[in-house]
Order: sequence, then structure tokens, then C-alpha cells
Amino acid sequence: MPARRPIVTFTTDFGLSDAYAAAMKAAVLRQCPEAVLVDITHQVSRHDILAGSIALERAIDAFDAGTIHIAVVDPGVGTDRRVLIVEIRRQFVICPDNGLITWAWRRQGPGRAAELLWRPDTFSATFHGRDILAPAAGKMAAGLALATKAITDPMLLPVSPAATLVDACVIHVDHFGNATTNVSQDLLSDGGSVRGVGELRRSYGEVERGQPLALIGSSGLLEIAVREGSAAELLGLKVGDKVIIQ
Amino acid sequence: MPARRPIVTFTTDFGLSDAYAAAMKAAVLRQCPEAVLVDITHQVSRHDILAGSIALERAIDAFDAGTIHIAVVDPGVGTDRRVLIVEIRRQFVICPDNGLITWAWRRQGPGRAAELLWRPDTFSATFHGRDILAPAAGKMAAGLALATKAITDPMLLPVSPAATLVDACVIHVDHFGNATTNVSQDLLSDGGSVRGVGELRRSYGEVERGQPLALIGSSGLLEIAVREGSAAELLGLKVGDKVIIQ
Amino acid sequence: MPARRPIVTFTTDFGLSDAYAAAMKAAVLRQCPEAVLVDITHQVSRHDILAGSIALERAIDAFDAGTIHIAVVDPGVGTDRRVLIVEIRRQFVICPDNGLITWAWRRQGPGRAAELLWRPDTFSATFHGRDILAPAAGKMAAGLALATKAITDPMLLPVSPAATLVDACVIHVDHFGNATTNVSQDLLSDGGSVRGVGELRRSYGEVERGQPLALIGSSGLLEIAVREGSAAELLGLKVGDKVIIQ
Repeated sequence: MPARRPIVTFTTDFGLSDAYAAAMKAAVLRQCPEAVLVDITHQVSRHDILAGSIALERAIDAFDAGTIHIAVVDPGVGTDRRVLIVEIRRQFVICPDNGLITWAWRRQGPGRAAELLWRPDTFSATFHGRDILAPAAGKMAAGLALATKAITDPMLLPVSPAATLVDACVIHVDHFGNATTNVSQDLLSDGGSVRGVGELRRSYGEVERGQPLALIGSSGLLEIAVREGSAAELLGLKVGDKVIIQ
Repeated sequence: MPARRPIVTFTTDFGLSDAYAAAMKAAVLRQCPEAVLVDITHQVSRHDILAGSIALERAIDAFDAGTIHIAVVDPGVGTDRRVLIVEIRRQFVICPDNGLITWAWRRQGPGRAAELLWRPDTFSATFHGRDILAPAAGKMAAGLALATKAITDPMLLPVSPAATLVDACVIHVDHFGNATTNVSQDLLSDGGSVRGVGELRRSYGEVERGQPLALIGSSGLLEIAVREGSAAELLGLKVGDKVIIQ
Repeated sequence: MPARRPIVTFTTDFGLSDAYAAAMKAAVLRQCPEAVLVDITHQVSRHDILAGSIALERAIDAFDAGTIHIAVVDPGVGTDRRVLIVEIRRQFVICPDNGLITWAWRRQGPGRAAELLWRPDTFSATFHGRDILAPAAGKMAAGLALATKAITDPMLLPVSPAATLVDACVIHVDHFGNATTNVSQDLLSDGGSVRGVGELRRSYGEVERGQPLALIGSSGLLEIAVREGSAAELLGLKVGDKVIIQ
């Protein structure tokens, strides 16, 4: 399917202090030794499906056709929740059917979804990432077909790009304390002003150090930032907060 | 020795904020440019040989014959402690002789141990990972022979898989707050019940959110977990705690 | 330019919880699918150019001719600060012209500096790492030429290797709490003693656990450490502190 060396990415809440991420990589390399492995992040907050969903969308935005993305934030592991393979922008996501696909589906899709029917001969009840998703991704990377069944109802979280400015809210706080909103730049083509923050700027340098600003971030969404500081800390912003745009 | 692109893994307590891990990777790539480098973890607690030992065992469990594992938790660097090359399950570990091999030796071995006699022309007194272990691993990955001497007495920590349920204790707390014990599933083939936690379950979904449970984790050992929570926090569990199984 | 599989490294303050580092990797792989990608660190403290500068110098020290290093600690992104390509020891650094090159320039250089004139057709105002530096590094890795202009005035921070022992100060505190100074081993060829710490030692094992010591660290600089402990914590050391050497 992909080019000579297929790219496989990893988005999880496994953290970096255990061997969990490496165990998935071993499973991919077993199936496809020439795969190029790229970590998106393993520091999604534990069980935070929305945050994982946003990181996954960023991965799809960054990579090209043929890339295979493994995403595992999976509090329901071992229950009967489905495993999905979703094709979006000619890339492939393999993830549990628990809403992880939401932000990619809404911003980069909709995609074509299928339930993964393939299972290995034996697998644990607690680590499907290693035992099912990674081997399946490795097989896909190696060009092998997997048993799947087309579906039309992937689970989607109740979060969407804002249809109008009235729906604006914070969907993510990043490492820098920048608060990303659900407002795409299209809604702000005539400019705008965020209450308590000021008018839309182009870059951090347009305000003094320590001052807040609103700008279109690298994801094409409205962000609230503080120059060389943390908007989340200075303004007390957190995921879910309403943002008032005038 | 290994396949076309040998896999070299890294397990250290170096953290991720300095260039230490990358310096080891540079040393491997210098010897073997086609090596596939996989981080197991660099977040072993500083100088915590037991924790490093458990991560290393997980690495050996995950990978296949021919893989080379570098493990460096090395408070004795620069003293006369030996450097080991240990073959376990047709994989190779290179590590200081300070107990790091313990958990792999006891769960996946015993292996065949040798002292690494090879030394580069010059090396620092404080970073043998970069100056000795990584170049040696790179040479092994490139198929070169190294001067070694067979030994039979690798240093082993006083920790073992439980022989009976009476020996049960916590050996590791993971990123999720799950407490792994030294009790393998073989000892629980007839089920069992952990005092204060309840009977053995199969998956997290069998209890309510926030409730503790006992189950066989992905390493084949008894774990104490809390569904979508932290057992370490909720139950105050830490490494070394006795676990009462009925 | 480099060998068959060019090495591209990454030094940033992006952290590991977002997809920012992966977005740069995607941009490199798009231009040069066979590149070997190595993280130096993404945990430089936010906007800490000096700390990034020191990690970058360690990267250059570790790798060989032909390696391409991307460094992004870039509070001025989106302003008119220049982007540099600097050749040092036949390796190539691409970074903002804000002082990031300082420590490599002073310890491994001076190098040959050029301003990167090339720009892609479109790029964001907030993420030049993804949109300019990584694609440029990928093109370099693929052997393509980029429009540049030689310069002689890269921005350099006011920090240098100590000319005499009187200039000694702490320039970095690492993951272990070791405090690295700006004093190279050349200045201590006759030994020396650090006030409050004692005479120069060769390895950690020469003092008791929990005791402080001075030694030449793996970077060839004087370090103040505590055996199996943190000098930064025990002695309250931080970047900029004067060190008295007798």
C-alpha cells in the first residue's frame, strides 16, 4: 500500500515510564521490519479520549497518504467495544471505537470506517494495543489484507468545529499553555476580538512579553496565548471553557 | 547475527531533558548505520535498578531473537563494576553488572552471561553508556565480535517471581497507577482473591469506574488496578508492599 | 551530502504531550523518506534559549560529519528574526537566529553561518519549525540546495567557556541534578578544589552516597554532583551561580 518504507505513528496515554509503547513497536516491526515508527505522543492524559482525538487529528494533518496511525486511549479494553480501521485523507487510523476518531472525523473527514474483525490466536484482556492493534497495523504496513466489516456508526464525541462564533470553546491546552479553541480561521476571515484578550493578532511578537493575545494557531484554529507565558495559567483557561468572540 | 536491520533498544534512567540518550544512539549508529533504534524508557527513576530491571524484562518479552538491548541504570559508573553481555531467549542485553539483569534472568532466563572485556581506546569515567555500552552494542549489531569472558555469577537482586502466594508483593507501579505483583498467572490458575480488592477479574470493565480490581496484567502477572483510576493512589500501594491472596 | 541514510536530529522546547515534534518529523520525511530521525530532547524549558543551546552543542559533540540538527526554541517566531544554517565540524544546524547556536559556536566552532532565504509558498506565523526549518532540513538531507546568504553576525548569548577559573559559573542542571559549569578540563589539568564541595574526583564512587563531589563530566566540563543524589537540590545550585575554585 504505502511507499517503500511505510510510516506508522503512535498516539497513546501510556506515558513514557513503562515499556508499553515499545511493546507496540515490537509488534509492528515483527510484521513490517522496514516500517518507519514515529511517536505522536504517549502523554495524552490518562483515559482522556478527547485529548487523544485532537493529537490524532494533528497526526493526520501532518502526514501524507499511506500513513498508518495507531491510537490507543482505551479505558474499555477487554470489553466488547469494537476496534476500528478508518480511512481519512488516504491515511489509515486503527483505534478503539470509543470516540478517539472524533476530531479527525470532524475536521479531516468524514472517513470510511470499518470494524476490524481480525484477531490473533491469543491476546490479553488488558493490552489490545500490543496484541491486536499494533499487529494489525504492522500487517497493513506490510501490505496484507485484514478481515474487516464496513460500518457507518463510529462512536463520536459531542465536540465539533464551531458552526458559528457563539459555539466557541476551548478544546485543548498545549504544552506552552496555549488554549486552542474549536473556531477555525474561516469564521474569523473578517477578524474578531476575544473578550478579555483583545483583537486577533498574527504572531506572538505583536504584544509585549507576558501579555495575552488571540491568534490563529498552527492547526488553523483560534488560540488564546500569552507571549512567552502560559495562557492557561494567566487566564485560568481549561478545556470546555466558553470563549466570547465579538 | 540479527536480520538485515538489527534492532537496538534503550532502557535508562537518563530522563528526556538532556542529550544523554541521543549520545548513546549516535554511538550505535556510528557502528551500525542501519540499526533500528527503539526506546523502551528513559524514565526509570534515578538509580532505581529494580525498576530498570523490570522494564528491561518487558523489552525482552516484547522483541524477537537477535534484538540487542542496552540498559543503563548505573550508579556505580566509573568504579570497577563489570559490564555484562547476557544472552536470554536468543536476544542480547548489555548492561552494568549491578542487578539490572535480575528480572529478565528470573522470568525469561536464566541466560548465558559474559563479562565485556572490550574497551575503546579512551572513555570517560562518568558515561560508560555512551563510551562503552553503546559502541559495543553497535558493534554487535554490525556483526562484529567483542572480547568477552564467560561468567556464572551476574549480580542478582533479591527479588523473584513468587514461589507461593505467601511471597506475593508489589514489584512495580506503572504510569496508570496499576500495581504489578510478583505473582504469575500460573499460581492463580484456580482463581483467587486479593484482600481489600476482591476476586480475580478478567478486564477493567467488570467493575464500576473508580473501583479497585485484581487481574492478570499484560505481563502475565497479578496486577491491582482501579478502573479509570490509580490503584497506587487509591489504595496507597508502593513497591515492596505485601499482598494478601486468599 | 551525508551518507546513504542522513541523520536528522531534533532539539526543541515543544514538550512531548502535543503533536508538534511529530509534525516536524513528517515534514522531514516528506522531503527525505530515508532520513534517520533522532530526538535530542523536546524538554528544553519553555523559551530557555541557553538550555537549548547546550543540548544542541551536546548533539553536535555526539554525532558525525553530515548530520543535520534542527533546533527550535523560538519565542520570536513570526517576527523578522532570521533563520540560520550553520556549519560546525562538518555538521549542519538549522535554527532561529536568537542565540540558540551560542554554545555550539563557542565550544565546537566557530562555524560558517548563513541566513536561510528559502521559504515555502505558504507558512504559518507561529510554527516555523514545521513549515520552514523541518522542510529545509529535509531538503538538505535529500541533497537539495537551498537559497542562503553568508552572514558573519549570528546572535550569540553572553555565555562562554570560562577563560580563567575566576569566570566559573553553573550553566546547566541536568536530569540527575548535576550542575555543569563552564569550566573545561583544560583549566583543571593541575587539579583543583570547589569551595564547599572538595577536590576534583574522577568518578562518583570516590565519595560516600549522598556526598557532594566535583568531577569532569561527560561533556569535558567541571560538574558538581552528589553521589546517587541531586546536587541542585542538596546544594541549592542553579544556572548562573558563581562557582569558587581554589
